Amino acid sequence: MGPHPAVAAIRLAVRRVLHDVLTDLAARDLATHAAPVGGPAANPAPEPARAPLVLVACSGGADSMALASALAFEAPKLGIRAGGVTVDHGLQSGSDLRAAEVVARMTALRLDPVASVAVSVGRDGGPEAAARDARYAALDATAEQHGADAILLGHTRDDQAETVLLGLARGSGIRSLSGMAAVSGGPGVSGRYRRPFLHLDRQTARKACMVQSLPVWDDPHNADPAYTRSRLRHEGLPALEKALGKGVVEALARTAQLSRDDADALDDWAARAESSVRDTDGLLECAKLYALPPAVRRRVLRRALIAAGSPAGSLFARHIEEVDRLITGWRGQGGINLPGRVEARRQGGRLVIRQG
Amino acid sequence: MGPHPAVAAIRLAVRRVLHDVLTDLAARDLATHAAPVGGPAANPAPEPARAPLVLVACSGGADSMALASALAFEAPKLGIRAGGVTVDHGLQSGSDLRAAEVVARMTALRLDPVASVAVSVGRDGGPEAAARDARYAALDATAEQHGADAILLGHTRDDQAETVLLGLARGSGIRSLSGMAAVSGGPGVSGRYRRPFLHLDRQTARKACMVQSLPVWDDPHNADPAYTRSRLRHEGLPALEKALGKGVVEALARTAQLSRDDADALDDWAARAESSVRDTDGLLECAKLYALPPAVRRRVLRRALIAAGSPAGSLFARHIEEVDRLITGWRGQGGINLPGRVEARRQGGRLVIRQG
Repeated sequence: MGPHPAVAAIRLAVRRVLHDVLTDLAARDLATHAAPVGGPAANPAPEPARAPLVLVACSGGADSMALASALAFEAPKLGIRAGGVTVDHGLQSGSDLRAAEVVARMTALRLDPVASVAVSVGRDGGPEAAARDARYAALDATAEQHGADAILLGHTRDDQAETVLLGLARGSGIRSLSGMAAVSGGPGVSGRYRRPFLHLDRQTARKACMVQSLPVWDDPHNADPAYTRSRLRHEGLPALEKALGKGVVEALARTAQLSRDDADALDDWAARAESSVRDTDGLLECAKLYALPPAVRRRVLRRALIAAGSPAGSLFARHIEEVDRLITGWRGQGGINLPGRVEARRQGGRLVIRQG
Repeated sequence: MGPHPAVAAIRLAVRRVLHDVLTDLAARDLATHAAPVGGPAANPAPEPARAPLVLVACSGGADSMALASALAFEAPKLGIRAGGVTVDHGLQSGSDLRAAEVVARMTALRLDPVASVAVSVGRDGGPEAAARDARYAALDATAEQHGADAILLGHTRDDQAETVLLGLARGSGIRSLSGMAAVSGGPGVSGRYRRPFLHLDRQTARKACMVQSLPVWDDPHNADPAYTRSRLRHEGLPALEKALGKGVVEALARTAQLSRDDADALDDWAARAESSVRDTDGLLECAKLYALPPAVRRRVLRRALIAAGSPAGSLFARHIEEVDRLITGWRGQGGINLPGRVEARRQGGRLVIRQG
């Protein structure tokens, strides 16, 4: 008799991602130690291979505890070392004790190495963004310190659906609908972060913990209506499901994937288009911009504004629209002031974008 | 003292759209009666100009009554004849009396011509889709009969937000997030339908009716929880607003516009890409498909399947994904059966798509 279906599901999800990690490592090794075709191996006496190391980022909640258990089970079978790290955000009293408990639980799962990292959370961009920034900085540092090849994150399909709705509320286009990536990089490192559970629902993770008798911790923040995500989880999404049917979470997750691919393709197009609409002085030619599809033109403008020093995070759709009107609705209007003391003005058929 | 702000807002919205209609008509006339450059006018004795005719589609509800009142006020100032049409769907007892009442109200607004059209609603695609199909067929016929140059529809920003959420629930990508167009065509006619209130909220339309003492009719269907849109309006959207803040409706409407532009650009790209990935026999080359960005490749596949006879409405994201795996995850799998008895199979590095 095999494992409980929930346990089988989380293990399969992790196994697939570990295979991807190994494939990527092999490709990287091949690129570094490429043997000449038909000739002898480039490294006749290679250094003894070090087993790859994969860490799980674990809060002690159901999602990441399920992930930790599946990693501990699958990694050894593939010759991978499995470790874990928990981040103590210091936002609740007793959070250090909580972190110590999570370390103990990871150790009980035979993860090794196991680390706890305390961070201090700033205020930039609001409490949720500040906590996230601090967390990823700590995870990046831990990966560097232990030479980890990947870090697994426990985000589920439900988290993805919430992220899409949060992006929808910004109304800033399809990039913000594209949610979290299954694979994303750290600073200077591609593919460091992997999200094996992005197609799995939260209920499956919780069930897998239950049937494996893993204790889980419910972060009180997750139920605190002061947090947007928590309101969305406990009120917004259930109401949407009631109106639109049970498939909403899955539909949102699929929208994320499709939007991400669409946004990538359009970004590519804009990058190519940008060089074709500049004159010999590097200025953007309005007539050539006008000829682009609106979706591409707006992306070219956004790129140019960011290159001139406007911070991406402060540049909203309405800014781009205003600059776009210099091209599509030209009536001799003056320069437009943009975030980061950047000014866009039309002059002699060219768009002049400068930081003041 | 000017009119109430709500009345000023609906009139401005209609005035802008009427200007667009006149501009489009002038451009069409110019194309038809173009004078040779420097020569005499092509039509030295033109037929007497007929004043353009714009109709409002009016259900008697607040949105379309507000629209009718604004059209009646603005059109004469621009030399446009203003008429109205109401569609009797025959779905509720007394709907014929209701239609007669709407005709009387439009006549009281001095709209002329005024028409009532009775339709019979089929069952194809569910009750809401069937009613919509019957309605647009009737509006198209009325436009032809009276030689109308445009038909105004009363959809508001709130309707747009609901449409985006309904599209989101399908999870089939950004085209279904793009809501209703501000301008759309009838059969063989570009730009027949115009939606002046797409950036206006429902509250403004209702207020404009109130301060103009226009009686409005509240369609009981709009409050009937048997209808998805009604559940969304009365439960789903309010809950989302509570979780995400008051800007949600506006954000959804902006998402619609951005998604529409993005989808248009990607459709263009796919149309161009399709011809470049076909071999001399017109078959799709798998290697060339593989080299396309996923977002473009999926659209090329969708186009090819529809061209082969698969009905667009039955072709879902999962179908496209399965065909895509013939390109990106080729393991010798067999042919794939698709809606409309279409089969896609990989053969000798080519994708063969045929209707059986």
